[in-house]
Amino acid sequence: MKKSLIALAVLAASGAAMAQSSVTLYGIADAFVGSKEISSVNAAGVITKQRQTVVDSSGLNGSRWGLKGSEDLGGGLKALFVLESGLNIDTGAAASGTSLFNRQAFVGLDSSFGTVSLGRQYSAYDSVRGTFLSAQGNSTSFDATNSATINTALLTGLPNTATPAQRLASLNSYGGRVGAWTGYQTRIDNSIRYATPNISGFQAAVVYGLGENKTPTTDATKNASVSLTYANGPIGVGVTHADDELIQDFHVKNTAIGGYYDFGVAKAFLAYNQAKITGLAKQKEWAVGVRAPLGATTLVAQYAQSKGDDLGKSTSVALEGQYSLSKRTTAYAAFNRTKVDLPILTSDFKNSIFGLGVRHAF
Amino acid sequence: MKKSLIALAVLAASGAAMAQSSVTLYGIADAFVGSKEISSVNAAGVITKQRQTVVDSSGLNGSRWGLKGSEDLGGGLKALFVLESGLNIDTGAAASGTSLFNRQAFVGLDSSFGTVSLGRQYSAYDSVRGTFLSAQGNSTSFDATNSATINTALLTGLPNTATPAQRLASLNSYGGRVGAWTGYQTRIDNSIRYATPNISGFQAAVVYGLGENKTPTTDATKNASVSLTYANGPIGVGVTHADDELIQDFHVKNTAIGGYYDFGVAKAFLAYNQAKITGLAKQKEWAVGVRAPLGATTLVAQYAQSKGDDLGKSTSVALEGQYSLSKRTTAYAAFNRTKVDLPILTSDFKNSIFGLGVRHAF
Amino acid sequence: MKKSLIALAVLAASGAAMAQSSVTLYGIADAFVGSKEISSVNAAGVITKQRQTVVDSSGLNGSRWGLKGSEDLGGGLKALFVLESGLNIDTGAAASGTSLFNRQAFVGLDSSFGTVSLGRQYSAYDSVRGTFLSAQGNSTSFDATNSATINTALLTGLPNTATPAQRLASLNSYGGRVGAWTGYQTRIDNSIRYATPNISGFQAAVVYGLGENKTPTTDATKNASVSLTYANGPIGVGVTHADDELIQDFHVKNTAIGGYYDFGVAKAFLAYNQAKITGLAKQKEWAVGVRAPLGATTLVAQYAQSKGDDLGKSTSVALEGQYSLSKRTTAYAAFNRTKVDLPILTSDFKNSIFGLGVRHAF
Repeated sequence: MKKSLIALAVLAASGAAMAQSSVTLYGIADAFVGSKEISSVNAAGVITKQRQTVVDSSGLNGSRWGLKGSEDLGGGLKALFVLESGLNIDTGAAASGTSLFNRQAFVGLDSSFGTVSLGRQYSAYDSVRGTFLSAQGNSTSFDATNSATINTALLTGLPNTATPAQRLASLNSYGGRVGAWTGYQTRIDNSIRYATPNISGFQAAVVYGLGENKTPTTDATKNASVSLTYANGPIGVGVTHADDELIQDFHVKNTAIGGYYDFGVAKAFLAYNQAKITGLAKQKEWAVGVRAPLGATTLVAQYAQSKGDDLGKSTSVALEGQYSLSKRTTAYAAFNRTKVDLPILTSDFKNSIFGLGVRHAF
Repeated sequence: MKKSLIALAVLAASGAAMAQSSVTLYGIADAFVGSKEISSVNAAGVITKQRQTVVDSSGLNGSRWGLKGSEDLGGGLKALFVLESGLNIDTGAAASGTSLFNRQAFVGLDSSFGTVSLGRQYSAYDSVRGTFLSAQGNSTSFDATNSATINTALLTGLPNTATPAQRLASLNSYGGRVGAWTGYQTRIDNSIRYATPNISGFQAAVVYGLGENKTPTTDATKNASVSLTYANGPIGVGVTHADDELIQDFHVKNTAIGGYYDFGVAKAFLAYNQAKITGLAKQKEWAVGVRAPLGATTLVAQYAQSKGDDLGKSTSVALEGQYSLSKRTTAYAAFNRTKVDLPILTSDFKNSIFGLGVRHAF
Repeated sequence: MKKSLIALAVLAASGAAMAQSSVTLYGIADAFVGSKEISSVNAAGVITKQRQTVVDSSGLNGSRWGLKGSEDLGGGLKALFVLESGLNIDTGAAASGTSLFNRQAFVGLDSSFGTVSLGRQYSAYDSVRGTFLSAQGNSTSFDATNSATINTALLTGLPNTATPAQRLASLNSYGGRVGAWTGYQTRIDNSIRYATPNISGFQAAVVYGLGENKTPTTDATKNASVSLTYANGPIGVGVTHADDELIQDFHVKNTAIGGYYDFGVAKAFLAYNQAKITGLAKQKEWAVGVRAPLGATTLVAQYAQSKGDDLGKSTSVALEGQYSLSKRTTAYAAFNRTKVDLPILTSDFKNSIFGLGVRHAF
């Protein structure tokens, strides 16, 4: 899927060529034609809907390009780095504002004692979700457990004095990018990551983000996440916890456990998550999914929901059909429908999206 | 001109290397030292001029770097993608604001039935202009038919209540980047493109941009362009139409026909374009040009003009001498002089530019 | 350290591969865990301090990625280009705002008469400083002679009517990025550079930046710098002058001489600089440093100071231990303490930084 660009030191005099390990240039180009039904809610809780035809980026995976490499330093020691830049291929713009390597940027050392790395890195929670919790593997636009969730919108402006109506209004920013679960911080700036070696399928990791916004009167706000995973043959299990201090003394904490079992005819996923928001809400969340291979086609289905006294109930259902044109290229059809049910809403807040696309990895 | 970085999967065990198609890293570095005479006009139509010495980017072609690739999927099917980023090499900044892949970003499939692609793509009109209409082939800074035209400036703020004086003031933003023709949208975000296969030299293409700015009360503004071209041996002809809906119900429509014939001693170009701006103006535009090879040197000359009742008359004359240092590297001298004649102006509004530069493709 | 990605034109029919020179993809990933003591000063000159733990980018060298290449045009003529993008690997963001190739972007021609290039380029002064003046070789975060100096902060708002207190406040922006010397412009947009060939170790260079901000009533503000260097075996000497016209008729002029001698057990550096700021200040500055190799470890120490009647006295001391894990990968520990002494301050303004990191070049 990702390709090594081998550097050859061509010696003009001798014509000889020597291979060295070096930098890998890689990426994903993923776009789809789609139809979105997008809801808007006003301050009174009244909902209006509209349908729009779109060419969008990142149906199955976030479109990206990146540089990565590793160097064998001898004695089991390796240096490694990743610089990865997400993009919206429908417009060519960077995926998250204008930050260049907005997906990952880190450098580290790997040895028989594990891997230590410094930079902008995935939280330990996010790594577990993509592999062990969601049957859709972090599908950017269609994942029923997507962290870019509608529930996250409900947190906007917290814990300040935003009125419930103002919070509702923030739901509008989720134009067709859907998923039921409450959000966590996906990538952590200024972070240290340590991962143990893989021992008989077991691996643990911790990611700690320093915040670096300390002032004479307040501490830095920090992000911490840990994970323990087991993957061996048909079975995989992960447990993870993330504590994101969004602003001083205001935390969103997610704790999840989940896993899969590959029955051969299908790989089944089951996951549970608990989200606690300081002084505000506690949501119980679960997801169930399946990936069934049928020749070159893989059918994927997933249902996820989040429920609690304060953020109400949101549910998301997703279906995908993926057709492998090659190891690196997949054509797909995908659907997601996500619904939020809150007393203040005059009716259910629903977004749905259908897309037909192609993902090419290079 | 553009080079393939071949990915080699080096198998450590066997030492064998297998070639695969993969990603191509390519670009153009083009800079020149120049002298510009730039006019400024105030709201009363009074013109002042000044001359400035500059180091500028993109004399012959827009400086850029990009990633592209294709994969043979078997059965005549191919996957393909392009991510292309324009830059001003004189400052290192992105060419158009801060959007990363501001030139092109798309992914698609190619078969014996043609090519379908999704993303940010050239309009069908632009592709015809570069090959069939302009002898200067989309030269960024010197092309007499450049779409970044002075006439485009006259459209600024339309169709709102901008006064003619305010519109004139917008002429000032065209500091030496010149060309007579009225503008069209070069690249289309959120677009679907379909191009037929090349059949005996004939090829057709359509590009449709979805706008994606629909609201509960207004439709999305769209871009549509079509082209039909014929290229075979010494002869090439293209006809194309573009309809750019700049804002709701306000369109700029360009319809062009043109072509070249290669007499051996020189390649002659002739083109005609009609620009219609909803409720405002209709311009008749034409261009004539020639490319004459003299050993390693190619002399290029072109004259273009735009004329109408509402946007007046603008003319542009360009001369280029291109000297091939290699297939990939060209030294050049180039000149352009563009003039706008409008009743409201106290005298002709003139910009001229002379440059001496080098273009290197990698 | 930097690797060539050789383009191979694989001829499917014959299976033969031909090597061509092409584009090199290269970079540096450098991050450290550190502790900073950062001072803040208010308008009354009162200083407060705080200590913060950080993951920061660019301890030894600015993290970066870039593309470069050269092409042999025959007859001793070569085309060359560089596109280099600096980044903060701790966040993935571009190092200087959002400009893409913020470090270098140029294209040029090289012959037996020297090299001419156009674009965004290092000033001749900066090139001398990195090699001949500072024992730390432009270390980004720890260099005692860093041009991103505290003294530069004192110039903020000059030569306008900023009060001394307002100028002091600008000191606060130098959060742990330290060095004693007064600043100069490192990279020059819209510049022409000419460098002579290396003749028996001697080489001269001139860089001229055109400013390009001419108006009907004012000239463009320009940057000019020249250098003469000698490097042969154990000895290296450089002399350089830079005249940066920051705003109309307001210049910062730096004139430096310095060099090194490699005694084998250690390489000793000595440098002197004079900074003149139009109508405001004249600072005398010097630095002394040493690089001592001890097997795979290199110890580096440097002291620098700046002294004058108007900007007071600032001093900076730095220590580094660099351990080579390979030619391309270095682990390091580094320390810098910089102090500003001004009558208006109630006490010394001090910043210190300690870091433990890894630099990997690719």
